[in-house]
Amino acid sequence: MILYDHPASANCLKVRILLRQLGLSFERVTVDLFSGETRRPEHLARNPDGRVPVLELDSGDVLPESAAILLYLAEGTPFLPSAPLERARVHQWLFFEQNQVEPGLAVARFMALVGRVGKHPEVFADRLRQGRRSLESLERGLVDPFVAGASYTVADTALYGYVHCASEAGAEPSEYPRITAWLGRVEATPGFVNDLEPITWTDS
Amino acid sequence: MILYDHPASANCLKVRILLRQLGLSFERVTVDLFSGETRRPEHLARNPDGRVPVLELDSGDVLPESAAILLYLAEGTPFLPSAPLERARVHQWLFFEQNQVEPGLAVARFMALVGRVGKHPEVFADRLRQGRRSLESLERGLVDPFVAGASYTVADTALYGYVHCASEAGAEPSEYPRITAWLGRVEATPGFVNDLEPITWTDS
Repeated sequence: MILYDHPASANCLKVRILLRQLGLSFERVTVDLFSGETRRPEHLARNPDGRVPVLELDSGDVLPESAAILLYLAEGTPFLPSAPLERARVHQWLFFEQNQVEPGLAVARFMALVGRVGKHPEVFADRLRQGRRSLESLERGLVDPFVAGASYTVADTALYGYVHCASEAGAEPSEYPRITAWLGRVEATPGFVNDLEPITWTDS
Repeated sequence: MILYDHPASANCLKVRILLRQLGLSFERVTVDLFSGETRRPEHLARNPDGRVPVLELDSGDVLPESAAILLYLAEGTPFLPSAPLERARVHQWLFFEQNQVEPGLAVARFMALVGRVGKHPEVFADRLRQGRRSLESLERGLVDPFVAGASYTVADTALYGYVHCASEAGAEPSEYPRITAWLGRVEATPGFVNDLEPITWTDS
């Protein structure tokens, strides 16, 4: 399999974490979002939304959207329960992550790290506010030991992505005791590797 | 089943469309987001993120997140294919909708309809820009006749929600010929009912 990837994207990190925990081998191809490679025709053919990650299967089929990739890879493994309501809980947190956590924390983190906060302070404040509210919701909804119940699932993997680096966005996960303890439990799962890299590009 | 609902929310509309197309009976309970009812303890117990829709099952279990509800209800029906790659395509578009379309168009529509654009013009422009880019991506990725392929699925139901009313957000779906034709095909599916109501509350 080929993972079209960026080392500083936590959406890509989520997929790498699961691939490694499943013991699947994959080739990483960096698509440089900062030089516009994600918007070029060859990448738009992989993902009409022009983003990473995209997973290319051995069949040649390509699959975009980090959470869709997680669900595809996790089917039939302990990382995705099969009972309808348990599976629905995993879906609930995966959609919450992509609808509230990511549009808040990922956008704010990106703006902070590339130096765009001063140019668009109202936009940054809006995104950070959404991100902080999503942390409050996660703190409120977290059950012990993992978000969807007794087992570590891809919902934990997905939420870990932008929650663990929320301080880079201007939020502080350590202010939330349940989140803090949960981050430690996620990092302690077998085969867990966090190799997220910093953003070094700046918008000058 | 009980649907905790708001008549002006297109996230809630998606669930009503599917419930009716499946011929399932349900009771609607309006949770008034404008008067703060979605943030009260009794609703936060249903959804830690304090939003609608939430579906209460006959067992008493509660399920938040519109797309998670769609997947739960559609399991085993023609609205959700079971082949892994076909199902992954449905997931791809469901996550794209919640990650790009909704944070763009739903937030911009809300700001426009309640009169918040003048107070936060930069935030509105940011959200509308994201919404317009999501329409370009949808136009690029739409396959004939439905987004995930040959059959109408819950991915179409979900995308219909905020795309069909994008003009209320300041975007114009009629500028996109494939989207325009697809909206007509979605509305022509058996049992399709769009009873989205306007937002009448204003932020004064």
